[in-house]
Amino acid sequence: MSPKEGTKPPGQNLFGGEATGPPQPFFHSRWVQAPEHVRDLGPDVGLPGGFRAWGVTCGIKPSGNPDLGLLVNEAPEPVSAARFTATGMPAAPVLVSQERCRLQSLRAVLANSGCANAATGQRGLDDAAKTQGATAVAVGCDPSEVALASTGGISHHLPVEKMLQGILAVRPGLDSSGDGAFQHAIQTTDASEKRANLEVELPSGTVRLSAQCKGAGMISPNFATMLCFVETDAALQAHTADLLFGVCVKRSFDRASVDGQLSTNDTAILMCSGASGVEIAPESEDELRFGEALDALLRQLAIMMVADGEGAERIARVIVRGGHEPSAEAVARAVANSPLVKTALNGADPNWGRIVQAVGAALPGTAPLSADLTIEGIPVCIAGAATGYDEDALAAAVKAMEIEYEIGLPGEGAETEVFFSDLGHEYVRINAEYTT
Amino acid sequence: MSPKEGTKPPGQNLFGGEATGPPQPFFHSRWVQAPEHVRDLGPDVGLPGGFRAWGVTCGIKPSGNPDLGLLVNEAPEPVSAARFTATGMPAAPVLVSQERCRLQSLRAVLANSGCANAATGQRGLDDAAKTQGATAVAVGCDPSEVALASTGGISHHLPVEKMLQGILAVRPGLDSSGDGAFQHAIQTTDASEKRANLEVELPSGTVRLSAQCKGAGMISPNFATMLCFVETDAALQAHTADLLFGVCVKRSFDRASVDGQLSTNDTAILMCSGASGVEIAPESEDELRFGEALDALLRQLAIMMVADGEGAERIARVIVRGGHEPSAEAVARAVANSPLVKTALNGADPNWGRIVQAVGAALPGTAPLSADLTIEGIPVCIAGAATGYDEDALAAAVKAMEIEYEIGLPGEGAETEVFFSDLGHEYVRINAEYTT
Repeated sequence: MSPKEGTKPPGQNLFGGEATGPPQPFFHSRWVQAPEHVRDLGPDVGLPGGFRAWGVTCGIKPSGNPDLGLLVNEAPEPVSAARFTATGMPAAPVLVSQERCRLQSLRAVLANSGCANAATGQRGLDDAAKTQGATAVAVGCDPSEVALASTGGISHHLPVEKMLQGILAVRPGLDSSGDGAFQHAIQTTDASEKRANLEVELPSGTVRLSAQCKGAGMISPNFATMLCFVETDAALQAHTADLLFGVCVKRSFDRASVDGQLSTNDTAILMCSGASGVEIAPESEDELRFGEALDALLRQLAIMMVADGEGAERIARVIVRGGHEPSAEAVARAVANSPLVKTALNGADPNWGRIVQAVGAALPGTAPLSADLTIEGIPVCIAGAATGYDEDALAAAVKAMEIEYEIGLPGEGAETEVFFSDLGHEYVRINAEYTT
Repeated sequence: MSPKEGTKPPGQNLFGGEATGPPQPFFHSRWVQAPEHVRDLGPDVGLPGGFRAWGVTCGIKPSGNPDLGLLVNEAPEPVSAARFTATGMPAAPVLVSQERCRLQSLRAVLANSGCANAATGQRGLDDAAKTQGATAVAVGCDPSEVALASTGGISHHLPVEKMLQGILAVRPGLDSSGDGAFQHAIQTTDASEKRANLEVELPSGTVRLSAQCKGAGMISPNFATMLCFVETDAALQAHTADLLFGVCVKRSFDRASVDGQLSTNDTAILMCSGASGVEIAPESEDELRFGEALDALLRQLAIMMVADGEGAERIARVIVRGGHEPSAEAVARAVANSPLVKTALNGADPNWGRIVQAVGAALPGTAPLSADLTIEGIPVCIAGAATGYDEDALAAAVKAMEIEYEIGLPGEGAETEVFFSDLGHEYVRINAEYTT
């Protein structure tokens, strides 16, 4: 069972939500600019050419909400790229997808919510393989062309019989406008829909990019715990798809943290149909522009996941400059995952001593560290010492819904960022008050 | 100002508390056994021979609660040992104590609450030096014999004039029964008193051990964020004191975590007067027995800090066995600091998938990891897969106030433990709802 599915009140999140009037534009964070050659087509235009998807309720979730989704690339020669969780304890669908799939030429993805099929041992692998085989038969392809993705509670076994029925039920629904139904089938505690349909103008022609994404809890950098499926009708070679997708994942989901927790089930897949006839040649202007669009898409989705973090009321970006790469990374993550920083963010508390604490803790043995801290453009600490900043201005600045912390470390060199959410009562309510 | 001083309702903690009837015995955790040769003398017997202490209100805290404490070792040749925070951004009192003190022969400790004197730059160092000098004059010793310890909010400057007045006021109060007053002067969000007076039977005679300790938030391993002062009338050589204290700190405060946060101000000091005339010779039976007593004392204090963790309702011990040392350490800390594990602990939720998540996240690149998990003696996961355990028995077991998780990693070798508290609404209330 997905333990927490349905426990989060809708419309509580920062951005959008189903009950809050007309949807806002997809690109709405101050931290992501839509490139000029990218246009948001809104939620209703359907998938790029060559793709069909659908979602159904097959009974994994006791709530009766949709829990099984199928996504198919009908191109003659599908191209794909994939990234998975870095955890030492990956779920069965991750292991099966990594070890038994041709990840560069996937034909289909079967995704379910309501059960992670994690910590399920050999039976979990067997169960996953059965659903992979059934999907291959339903779609008419080889099992190695079917990737699997699951999300939900850890330690429960998949209800395989229900899923096999579900695969039969979802197959006839496949539709080029089925991305919304597919999206709903992969959601768990998400309070808002994370879905996009973009049009990208390239020198060689116009292509489409769509994405469906879920993720609200057990979200951590390296990379963020989530499922994300991206489709394009551009024609990419497998190597180009892998390269672009890898770079963009590193700059987006890798930089997001809700609670510093790394899921057993993270999966992100890019699928390319080539139906537009526009080829993205390596090292071409097309590749550059397409990469910019993919980058903006994934960064906005990552920020939406953080903003929809379980119980999130405020979000922040921490930027660390200077020092060397591992130090900058350690500092950024220490700040993003500090419960003291996150509760201060929740309470709009200007108590920046907690940020200094996290910086120092991330770099033991470096004392005294000459670090700088600027909050919303106000320098509060220079070379390790408090400045004479305007306390009222700072108190007003930290009341914003998106807060930016800039940390300077001694020396030139590294620069990194992490997007993160706050820690408030709602996170505790969702995660403590539920009992399996 | 100590931002959170006084915000925690008393009597809410797991152990003791001022308003909950007669104090319980000092040794009360199932995870610490008092050695047979150690006797708890209760709170009212005063300090070991050679020590005097006192605490006053000097006006650092707006609440008017005690905020300045002085501890003096009157032995002809005082012996001491000290440990400090590992942070890269230590507070001024830590830097001054580390760089300007004879840490092996301290005569006095000046401790204040209500202000950490951290992130205060050169002025902070100058302020600390002034209070060190004034204490040396008041006590009649060299400034290098006066250690400083501060706790409270980061980024504020010490009110030096008030403290100088306070040093004059606290001096005449110095008393062999002043440990309670000294304890009160160093508390911030602590809801319970962490203080002990022990008698230790050694082959060569009977000695005393006393301790006063504070710590509730910004508590993390390596080592726990706290102040702890330990006094004994045993006679130890400086080398022996340092060795024993170092080992015992590693087995106690180093293994405690409330919120995974490393303070700028951690300070632990052992002071030896030798007034009992009992010498603890290196590698003697006396040293062994004294070490056992010191170990039990510090472990019980560490567990009391965790139990008094901000908002703590339940506490846990995670033991990791197998693998090599860095892996075991990473796993233990990942579990202890996981907000998902901590909220589950708070809610008495048997959802152990979150523990598996933390284990896997701590050891990226090891998939598939064959880890075992036992909760309160019930094996729930063997070789990475759920067992057919009794769900009702598990649900009942996790309702206890102290929960034990045992994790097995592949291979022989390492063994480590971390004591940690849960994450509940009270932690969020204390840390989010207050605004500086």
